[in-house]
Formats: sequence, structure tokens, C-alpha cells
Amino acid sequence: MTTKSWWGWGTVHNAVTGAERAALTNRVAALLPEADLTVHEAPDPTSLNVPAPRNRVPDSLAHLASDDLGDRLRHSHGQAFRDVVRNLLGRIDHVPDQVVRPRTEQDVIDILDWCTSAHVAAVPFGGGTSVVGGIEPRCAAAYAGAITLDMSCMDQLLELDRTSRAARIQAGIFGPALEAALRPEGLTLRHFPQSFEFSTLGGWLATRAGGHYATIYTHIDDLVESMRVVSPAGISASRRLPASGAGPSPDRLFLGSEGILGVITEAWVRVQHRPRWRAGASVVFDNYDKAVAATRTIAQSGLFPANCRLLDPMEAFLNAGTDTAGGVLVLGFESADHPVDEPMRRAVQICRDHGGRVPDGLRITDSADDDARPGAADTWRSSFLRMPYQRDALAAQSMIVETFETACTWDRFDALRNAVLTAANTAFRAVGVTGVVTCRFTHVYPDGLAPYFGIYAAGRWGRTVEQWDEIKIAVSEALAAHSATITHHHAVGRDHRRWYDRQRPEPFAAALRAAKSTLDPAGILNPGVLIDPATSTARKTR
Amino acid sequence: MTTKSWWGWGTVHNAVTGAERAALTNRVAALLPEADLTVHEAPDPTSLNVPAPRNRVPDSLAHLASDDLGDRLRHSHGQAFRDVVRNLLGRIDHVPDQVVRPRTEQDVIDILDWCTSAHVAAVPFGGGTSVVGGIEPRCAAAYAGAITLDMSCMDQLLELDRTSRAARIQAGIFGPALEAALRPEGLTLRHFPQSFEFSTLGGWLATRAGGHYATIYTHIDDLVESMRVVSPAGISASRRLPASGAGPSPDRLFLGSEGILGVITEAWVRVQHRPRWRAGASVVFDNYDKAVAATRTIAQSGLFPANCRLLDPMEAFLNAGTDTAGGVLVLGFESADHPVDEPMRRAVQICRDHGGRVPDGLRITDSADDDARPGAADTWRSSFLRMPYQRDALAAQSMIVETFETACTWDRFDALRNAVLTAANTAFRAVGVTGVVTCRFTHVYPDGLAPYFGIYAAGRWGRTVEQWDEIKIAVSEALAAHSATITHHHAVGRDHRRWYDRQRPEPFAAALRAAKSTLDPAGILNPGVLIDPATSTARKTR
Repeated sequence: MTTKSWWGWGTVHNAVTGAERAALTNRVAALLPEADLTVHEAPDPTSLNVPAPRNRVPDSLAHLASDDLGDRLRHSHGQAFRDVVRNLLGRIDHVPDQVVRPRTEQDVIDILDWCTSAHVAAVPFGGGTSVVGGIEPRCAAAYAGAITLDMSCMDQLLELDRTSRAARIQAGIFGPALEAALRPEGLTLRHFPQSFEFSTLGGWLATRAGGHYATIYTHIDDLVESMRVVSPAGISASRRLPASGAGPSPDRLFLGSEGILGVITEAWVRVQHRPRWRAGASVVFDNYDKAVAATRTIAQSGLFPANCRLLDPMEAFLNAGTDTAGGVLVLGFESADHPVDEPMRRAVQICRDHGGRVPDGLRITDSADDDARPGAADTWRSSFLRMPYQRDALAAQSMIVETFETACTWDRFDALRNAVLTAANTAFRAVGVTGVVTCRFTHVYPDGLAPYFGIYAAGRWGRTVEQWDEIKIAVSEALAAHSATITHHHAVGRDHRRWYDRQRPEPFAAALRAAKSTLDPAGILNPGVLIDPATSTARKTR
Repeated sequence: MTTKSWWGWGTVHNAVTGAERAALTNRVAALLPEADLTVHEAPDPTSLNVPAPRNRVPDSLAHLASDDLGDRLRHSHGQAFRDVVRNLLGRIDHVPDQVVRPRTEQDVIDILDWCTSAHVAAVPFGGGTSVVGGIEPRCAAAYAGAITLDMSCMDQLLELDRTSRAARIQAGIFGPALEAALRPEGLTLRHFPQSFEFSTLGGWLATRAGGHYATIYTHIDDLVESMRVVSPAGISASRRLPASGAGPSPDRLFLGSEGILGVITEAWVRVQHRPRWRAGASVVFDNYDKAVAATRTIAQSGLFPANCRLLDPMEAFLNAGTDTAGGVLVLGFESADHPVDEPMRRAVQICRDHGGRVPDGLRITDSADDDARPGAADTWRSSFLRMPYQRDALAAQSMIVETFETACTWDRFDALRNAVLTAANTAFRAVGVTGVVTCRFTHVYPDGLAPYFGIYAAGRWGRTVEQWDEIKIAVSEALAAHSATITHHHAVGRDHRRWYDRQRPEPFAAALRAAKSTLDPAGILNPGVLIDPATSTARKTR
């Protein structure tokens, strides 16, 4: 059974149940004894009174379109906590009229041509894992209709260049299929966002996804060689190049454009050989400031660890079961070319210089010796991929469980984290909940880091969306006050607009609006994302 | 004496003379015995009949402006071979009316406001080392005048963040002053383009400069944290961030914008500790294809050498005096944090696996042991920085001496290099010269490389510009035919326009024109660079 859940993460088959739910419930009850953890079930979708489609694609495109209720519902929301809970409450606010699945680039052109002429909004859709309202057709009322342009039928590996280690791949391919296509060649894209199983290459490109590796080639921005993008004004096809200094980068305009400038149909991406040598260690600290200093020194060392994930004491306790005063730094190195003992030992030495201890020693492996055993990185990855299912289980038990992420320079981190913790705890009191905040680093750079915060709070059923929204506003204001970014890899969508608008330099905003007017003159592409809809009718709906 | 040459590279004091010129002449005579190497002197600038300024800035800005003849002449051209030779021939085609040197950001705003209202073209100018016509005011006739906006008075290090290793620096600072400001802190930007001595931070950013290191953090694009840009429509100031996923990157619109969207006034840049440990080797190959394969394997190994410069046999012979059948790979590693013996040995092993030999062994140094001795990298850098002076000396002796560069994926390199060599040699015959073509790699990437070609041909005095232009067209067509980029780090300017226009996706061109119209509605900023001037009057001049 691989039926996708209409209301929550992933597949129905993989939902948290039975013993797993009991264990999770017990852990949360121990942490937050006052929580009411009654389980609320999702409503029957047929009971939801979803409006009938207002508009349908013309007959020439009808073979690509679906107005099946479940299909429409699955395309009506992303996968944020607030999306999942609204679904559980039966609050289905914006449903596309149809789901249209192009099979060729010409189909995409034809669909956009029809949307332009019929003034129908088109929401490009990869796997639908947006956590920022990026694919929810909220502006539909200002249009004659709204379709979701689901790219999942364009999912083929088209070409492989083994010499340059690059692959031409259609945008609608999901993470597992992409890796499966490369594996027989001993290759990997090595891009593993948390949404990996249910998100697509096109979605990663449109939202500037971050993979789960900590340094250098981890952002999809750096893994792409060239892109094809269908805009209403024509196809933009960049050349396959390892680098270029010919004017501003064309690809960089479309990377992060979140579907407002065009629909990404395919890309050449940089792939690599699958790692053979690995080294890992978990370093325990008694002092968090020293743990941060050690992590910063490693980030500035030129060692480029694959993993460099500092868990603060609360995160280490909740997600790794480790009780520490200063947190745990999870370190990993890997290579397809050479053993990585030496950089691992140097990184551990840096930790020891800052008071770190390695109670379990180093794990050093060569997969040629022991191909079958999963590495620690694989174990982490499995648990990492399991987290959203557990989030859904807790969301149905009145818990407020959500994450937010940012990036800042090293000099600002201490003040930023304090401000975020203060803002969250103040907001907890204001909305009448008890909860905890955790922090881990997902990526480190020589000049800064990406901290990722988790919120676990006992909410009141029926009010958890509003409670979360208040908390989100408070922590986002703290990020803005410290000049951190509103998003390091979750994108802007509709939910981050108010902070993005303040972060983005106004002349750049003007340039982006000008680009949008040129490439999408009718303003049909994903209206409301990144910039305001251009038409005066559409503007009224905000 | 640090007087800058009005016609050629660098300072008058450092020009090639005496024994150095004699040795250079002898080397060229041995290679190209038929060359007429008579030395032609630059004309007296006062004899040149330069038109008087057509326009002057208003009194309120007069204290920033110069109409000194030498000053105007030094700002009338870049430093391409064709620029230098035109100067030697007294062909001064386009001279700015005045050179204006803002001292503050408000000065920049005031100057652009005046240019906008008076319809005067403004050419932003860093160090003037463009080799693509990027700062030559060719479109001036379509405007009421043209000024050069020389940023060299805004040249201060404003702020240093030692924790994040970042510095806030004004755009007009030259390479040596920037490094001198960082050195007392043990820091370096570690960005050394060949123009280093005479180019500025703002120029590097505007043209997406490539440093001389071979891998990872070498492009200025990756060394910049945030930028301030004054456009006629307002100031764009991005946040200091190590990374962000909030929409398309604002900085990436201005990186490579070559002065057409705004004037970069300052940037936060990522700096690093000065390297202590170094390792170097020169690997000799008997077979060029195997040398390329070894270089590619190293580029794909994750070892990230600081230097990975494959010289083809002709380049090795001319620039390193080494006679080989397959070329020489110059390898280097360096680190401020740890010894680099191990990656060096692994890289050499890869070379040996491909038939490489290391006749002189490895050079492994720790500057803590021996601080005073210049490393091999320093020796290379000195000779690298000397090359433009030698180019000028030969240009005055009727030689055609020029370089061009590109980037391509590994799978295309063999055919590309053959096509370039064929195109150049065919063009040599067509224009009646004899000459040689050399190739070295300046940068390597997992998926491709940046080959850098040198042309040395015996031209006919008075015709060498036209002869070179023919050769340039031939080799540029070869690059285009193989889908390589027209420039990896020299920029587009005015000279690369016809190939850039074919390379750039048309929807992106439309978006860029829209951005330009929004940020510079009067079209006064560096008209003719990257895109056509927007006004119909200006268009006529092309």
C-alpha cells in the first residue's frame, strides 16, 4: 500500500500507530504532563463539502486533468503543521479546480497558454511538501479558476554523462526514483532534504532546497548545471556549464523563484560517486558556548565534514536520548576517493581543545569491507525521515509540533538563539501553553550557520493552528530583529511573505516584479508567492 | 614612482625594458623567426587631439571631478590587447568628458541623480582592467555626455568581524590595499585574479571575477556575504548571511551586472586565516589525454587542491620552460588549520595511476618553520602578475599576444580544444600571420573545467588589432559551436556581446532588460554593456 495520505505526511501505510504511538505518547507525557493527548481522527473527505470545480481545462487537455476529490484535496495544502491540523479539523480552505499532469514540455506550454488566455491561476506542484503555503491556491478567488500543475508524470532520467558526472533529469522525479536511477551506475545526487521521499527535483530547484549534508556541495543551487524553464513568455534553457562569468547567472533567477516565473521541466545536475569511506563521532560537551566555538572552528578549518550537527541539550535529550549540559556534536566525514580518518581525527582534536569528549570513540568504516551494514549516517537518515510521521501523530493529539529555521553569521548566533528562546517562551505563556524549544545546526559555513529550531508544546484542540501562528509570529520577529534570514531552506511561499518583504532589498523586489511582469504578463503563475499578484482584481484578495 | 601608464598595464616604472625586453625578444624570435620585433613607442598624449569635454558636472559636484587629459585618457579604455595597441597607435576612440571620484555613498547618489536628469552616461570604474570593453564609453554619442565614475576614493576597510571571519569593505579598494588591511589580523581574502594589483573589490563583484585558486572558494561570487548597490531607483542592501533560501538571491542579480544596474559601494566579504601548511608538486605527463584524465579524477576526488593547473605541452614549454609530450600539472594544497601532506600524496598517486611522473618530488612546507622563504605559489604568483607587462612589451613589437577563456563540461573538452586550435590556426593563415596557441586550466570543477588559451602570433604593425579581431571571432565561434561559455571570468562587456546574446536564454534577457528599466529608467548606467541601450536615440549608435 503506497496510498498517499490526503491530510498528512507520506503514505497511509507508514502512519504512526500501535506501539510506536504509545511510546511517543509516553515520551511526550513525561515531558509535558499536563498535555491532553487524546487522539483526533481525520474526517472523511467526502463529508467536507468541497466546492465543485469552477472551471475545467479545454478538451484538448482533458486527458491530463483530474477532478477526483481525493486528488484535489491532496493538492490543496502543503505539509506544514498548520496544514495538517487544518485538514484534521476539516478546514479545507482552498482546493484547486483540477489537478493537471503534463506528460511533455509541450503539454506544459499548452496548459500555461490556456491559463493565460482564460485567466486561470496555475500552481506548479512537485511533491507538495511545502511548509510555507507555497502550493495552496489561496488567490484563486481573484481568478476564473485555479489548477494545480502536478509535474509527477515528467519523471525520467533522460541522459547521463559519466565523464562529467552529470545527469539530465525531468523535474517531476521523486527523490527515491532519482537515486534508484543513478545507483546502478555507482552514482548519487547526494541531496537528501528531510522531504526526500515525497519531494521532487523541480521542487528542490524552485525552493532552493538544502540537503542534509552540512558543508559545501549540499544546496541544490550548487548541484545544478543547467535548467529548462517554461514561462508564459517562452522557454529559458541555460547551457550546461561547470561555471560561467557571463553576466548575472540565468539559473540563479529561477532558483528560488517558487513557481512564479515559470515551470521547471528539467535540469542537468551534478552527480557523484557513492561514498565508500566513512568516519563518524558523537562529541559530548559540558558547555554549550564551547560546543558552538568548536563547531565554528571546524566550519572554518577547511575540513568540510559531511555532517556537523550540533544538538543543544534539549535537542540531544529529546532526539538522541542523551543528557548533557552542553549538547552533542554529531560529526561525519565521507568520501568515494580516499579514507577520511585524518580529517575526522583533526575535527575531534578541535573538539577536545574545546572540552569535548567522545565517549563512544570513532566509527571508521570502508564499505568495501562491509557493504551490508548500514552506517550511522543511514540510521540517522531513517530517523530523520521518520520525524514528519511522528509530527502528524502528535498534531492529532493537540500537540503543537513544528520547526523553523534560519541562518546567521557566527557573531550573532548567541544573541539570536537567546532571543528566539525568549520569544517562544513568552509566546507560550501568551497563548496559554507549556512547551519546549530545541535547536540543532543543520548546515555550517565558514562565516555562519543554519540553526533549526523545534517547538513541542501542549496545545488546546481546535486552537492549535492559531496558537502556533502566534508563536510563529513571535519567533519570526526575533529572527528579523537579529537580521537573520526568514528561511535558509524552507522557502518563502505565502506564509513567510511579511518577513521576506522586509528582508528583501526594495530595488531587488522591483526588479523581481519587473521580471515577473515580463515572463508572466497575465500573472497566472502561483499568485501571491514571493510577490503580490500583479492584477488589481487579484490584489483585492490579500 | 607609481605613475600609472596612460596606455598600457600597470605603472610606468614597472614596464619591461633593458635586459628583460632583450630576453623576451630573443625567446619570441626563436619561436617565430619571421617576426618583425621593432619596438614602437607610445605617442605623446598631448599630440592626440582628444576632444574637449562636452559636458561638466554641476558646481555642487565639481570638487569630485577631473578633466585632466591624462586622467581622461587613462579612463578611456580597458587593458585588452586591442585597447593597448589602439593606444600605441594613437587611436583614442572614446574619452569620458570627466572623471568623477565620489568619496561617499551620497556622492554616488548625487552623481547618478545628475546623470539621470542631464542624460549623461555614467561608466562605473574600479581599476580599469577590463579586457572586454567594459569601461570604454562607446555609447557616449547618444548621450549629452559621458562621465567615468571612478570608485577609487572609496577604499576603506570599514568593519571586521573576527568571529565570523568577515569584513565590510568599500568597493574602490585595490587588491594590495585590501590584503594589507587584513594582514595584521592574520587574515586574507585569498582572491588573486591576474589583475590583482590594479583591480578593485567592486570590479571583481561587478564582473564575477575568478581568483587564481583552482577549486571551491575562489570565485568572488562565493566570497561575498552581502552587498550595497546604489541604483538610480534606490539603494539595494542585502543582509549579511552565510546562506539563505529566501527567494532568488538578490546578490546574484548584481554579481556580474557589470555596472548596468547600479554602482556597488561596499560589501561584506568572507575572509580566512592565512595558510600555514603547503604542499606542491609538478607532475610531468607523456600523454596529454592521460594528463586531462588525471586532472579530472583529482577534480572529482573531493581533495580540493588550491592549485590544479594543467599546462599543455606548448604552454609548459613557453611559460615553464619544460619540454614534455603530455604537459605539466601544477598541483598545490594549502591550509591554515592542518598539514596537507595526505591530500597531496593522494593527488600524486592519482597522477601516477595515469602515467604522471614527479621528477622534482613534493615540496612540503610549514611557514611556522620557515616564514621568510617565499613558496612556489608565491613565485608563480609573481610571474603570473608579470605577464601583462610582458604582453604590453610584445604588443609594441607587432606581436599579437592575447588570451581568452571559457568553461565546459569534461565530456566536451577534447573536441572543444581541438576546435579552438583549428579555428585559431585557420584564422592565423587567413590574416597572414604565424603563431602558436597554448592552453592551461585555470579552474577545475567536478563536472568541468575552465581552459584558458593564449595566442602568440607575429602580426603586421598597424594591423594587429584587426588581425586579432579576426582571430577572436574565429575562436569565439568555436566556443559557441561547442556550447562553452563566452567567458568564465573575463566578463561580457561590449566585446563579448554577440556571443553572450546567443548564450543567454531569451526569457532571461527579457527579465534582465525589465530589471534594468526598473532600476535605471533613464538608461544612463554603462550603456551597451550586457544589453542594448534602452532609449531609441542610444540604440542608433550601435
